[in-house]
Amino acid sequence: MTDQPLWTLQLGHSEVDELAARADPEAPLAGVRFAIKDNIDLAGHPTTAACPALAAKPAGASATAVRLLLEAGAVPVGKTNLDQFATGLVGTRSPYGACHSVASPAHVSGGSSSGSAVAVASGLVPLALATDTAGSGRVPAACNGIVGVKPTRGLVSTTGVLPAVADLDCVTTLTATVSAARPALAALTWADPNDPRSRPMPPRAPAAVAARMRVVAVPDMALELDPPHQEAWTAALDRLRGVAAHVVPVDVAAFLEAGRLLYEGPWLAARYAAVGGHLEPDGPHLDPTVRRIVLRGRDIAGAEVFAGLERLATLRRQTEPVWADVDALMLPTTPGHPTIAEVAADPVGVNARLGRFTTFANLLDLCAVAVPAGERADGLPFGVQFVAPAFADAPLLDLAAAWCGEPVAPPAATAGSTLLAVAG
Amino acid sequence: MTDQPLWTLQLGHSEVDELAARADPEAPLAGVRFAIKDNIDLAGHPTTAACPALAAKPAGASATAVRLLLEAGAVPVGKTNLDQFATGLVGTRSPYGACHSVASPAHVSGGSSSGSAVAVASGLVPLALATDTAGSGRVPAACNGIVGVKPTRGLVSTTGVLPAVADLDCVTTLTATVSAARPALAALTWADPNDPRSRPMPPRAPAAVAARMRVVAVPDMALELDPPHQEAWTAALDRLRGVAAHVVPVDVAAFLEAGRLLYEGPWLAARYAAVGGHLEPDGPHLDPTVRRIVLRGRDIAGAEVFAGLERLATLRRQTEPVWADVDALMLPTTPGHPTIAEVAADPVGVNARLGRFTTFANLLDLCAVAVPAGERADGLPFGVQFVAPAFADAPLLDLAAAWCGEPVAPPAATAGSTLLAVAG
Repeated sequence: MTDQPLWTLQLGHSEVDELAARADPEAPLAGVRFAIKDNIDLAGHPTTAACPALAAKPAGASATAVRLLLEAGAVPVGKTNLDQFATGLVGTRSPYGACHSVASPAHVSGGSSSGSAVAVASGLVPLALATDTAGSGRVPAACNGIVGVKPTRGLVSTTGVLPAVADLDCVTTLTATVSAARPALAALTWADPNDPRSRPMPPRAPAAVAARMRVVAVPDMALELDPPHQEAWTAALDRLRGVAAHVVPVDVAAFLEAGRLLYEGPWLAARYAAVGGHLEPDGPHLDPTVRRIVLRGRDIAGAEVFAGLERLATLRRQTEPVWADVDALMLPTTPGHPTIAEVAADPVGVNARLGRFTTFANLLDLCAVAVPAGERADGLPFGVQFVAPAFADAPLLDLAAAWCGEPVAPPAATAGSTLLAVAG
Repeated sequence: MTDQPLWTLQLGHSEVDELAARADPEAPLAGVRFAIKDNIDLAGHPTTAACPALAAKPAGASATAVRLLLEAGAVPVGKTNLDQFATGLVGTRSPYGACHSVASPAHVSGGSSSGSAVAVASGLVPLALATDTAGSGRVPAACNGIVGVKPTRGLVSTTGVLPAVADLDCVTTLTATVSAARPALAALTWADPNDPRSRPMPPRAPAAVAARMRVVAVPDMALELDPPHQEAWTAALDRLRGVAAHVVPVDVAAFLEAGRLLYEGPWLAARYAAVGGHLEPDGPHLDPTVRRIVLRGRDIAGAEVFAGLERLATLRRQTEPVWADVDALMLPTTPGHPTIAEVAADPVGVNARLGRFTTFANLLDLCAVAVPAGERADGLPFGVQFVAPAFADAPLLDLAAAWCGEPVAPPAATAGSTLLAVAG
């Protein structure tokens, strides 16, 4: 249990019991309790996105992702706290209060999916829905020692998700293990005719996707990590040699430069397009940092957006040759683990640094899995992520499972794992 | 011959002869003279984009498209007039003067590739390079009774092309026949590592691409054409029944709505991003209509751009089911053929109407071929276009050839046609 402000809403016992009674006992997730990040609709309850002003209006229908988990037998227990409007990677930007890492009350939980990560890491639920635009699923997974799977954009519908950057938002799972994520992802993967960004898994894997991930790349340069992170990263590099058949260094400068675009301008206009209407009038229902950041998006010119898209296209092209030679890329999920006090002292700078290794994935149309990678000397969790081209989701999960010492082939043929194998 | 202002630059006889002497006589386009729209670089000569202020600076290198034609043995003879900065579909927006249709001095040539179309339709060259963002290749093809092939975006490099809307610009061929376009397209189709938007033809055709185009759709509604256009369109519909195995009506409202996005806001910001730097100071080197239009792009907010992209994604999704049931779509290329006086009286309105059926193709990632479809009762040419999903270029060319009564299989195995068959 935990006394953290991780819930924006907990369902009553009777409602949970009723939903559980309704689930097909033969369904792949029958009875599995799950938490829902509160930027994802659950029918009959408000979606606040951590903005209490939105608490008055219940959602008319559940998000497609929630509906699919319900159909797979899973049982929702509540909505979870987040950095407001999913704008942040720290977990402190919420009028509902700041979460902290399950490993340390002084250190951030990561965000924006703070409550979902804490719920899973505290053992309250085995599964939580999150979202990940710039790292919002992976960063809190790393800060709490759990697994965050950010699928290829479009594989999981975002219908019923309050957008942050609509073109980039990905529904993400948080679980304690890769094996626990598999049946959830199988249930969630569905081409939604109502989501214009939905993309089916292609019948044949694209050329850049390896059937088995043998060659794993790591950055060929020093990464400017916090010292305890650096120690843990060095250990992770050693460990990788026991997991991957081949470990090769690659230049990741273009990846990281692409990631910086997300915070340095054009895409702020997308956030303003998504939630700008909620920023006036100001009041205690608005997180001051989030409001300041998103308002900057109002003043970005359309021509800057197109210039940014141009720059992104060039960087994306620069990164593509990497995938001809390697199957996946391993990076630390974060460069460090800041304290809540450090975030308070420099809310924007600390947040931006925290996303250094996660912001590029959706801009470059990659899938990614964040996994635990032991503990730092100070006992805080350390996490790495594996990143691969779009639609490499299934082999990437197997690589993550191998890293975690879990079964690489999906476990015994449940309906869920079969579906995933077919989808992959 | 013609006394129209179709050239911005004609190469001297000695330069042309020298280039011709340099060409490999065995090359697929050996000795074929071609004209180059003056927004495409030819090494050693300025690229004015019909802005005389740009005439001082020669291009350091030829555009990739020009280089590929040169390598295939073709011989450039000059640069052609256009609606300034490729912003217009009329052919009148140029300080170098207004072109007119080869069929009527009172009627527009169409644009923006006005000079290239007139050069081919007048018989001065058998081939011209054009560009087509909103219809700039297809509209002047229709206004002059020739063939305009707008390939799938990315198949032909835009390196060395002055952008109009960089994400949408397509190099296009203008020729008298489909057969004349084939070897040029074969030479032009090349994945350019220096063009971030370049895309190779996929090794296997996407699911939506038919190997042979049997089912051709036509709009299920009246199209509000000019009366002489309507008569010619009715005749074209009759003729189509002799060309396509199946003709079916479809709802094209979402296609046309997507097309309107191009002129109604967000994408003007892309034009401003591309050429806004050339608009100050004002002077006689700037076309007043073009300047006014592009300056509107300066005031478009980034959030509007993202909202427009959102709307486009939804419309694109709405149009996709069409391709499950039909192989190609036939539409008139234009809704009418305005006079130069009509354009002068309403420069923006007449221009926008002229693009009603062409603006959607690049936004929706389609390929298109504009072909002649007889004459109207008043002797002006009438044209139709065939439109199909991305990468359907080869079967679409065959459909266009069948329409024109030309060989459907590529003609005798020249190097060029072999290349196209491999690419397709």
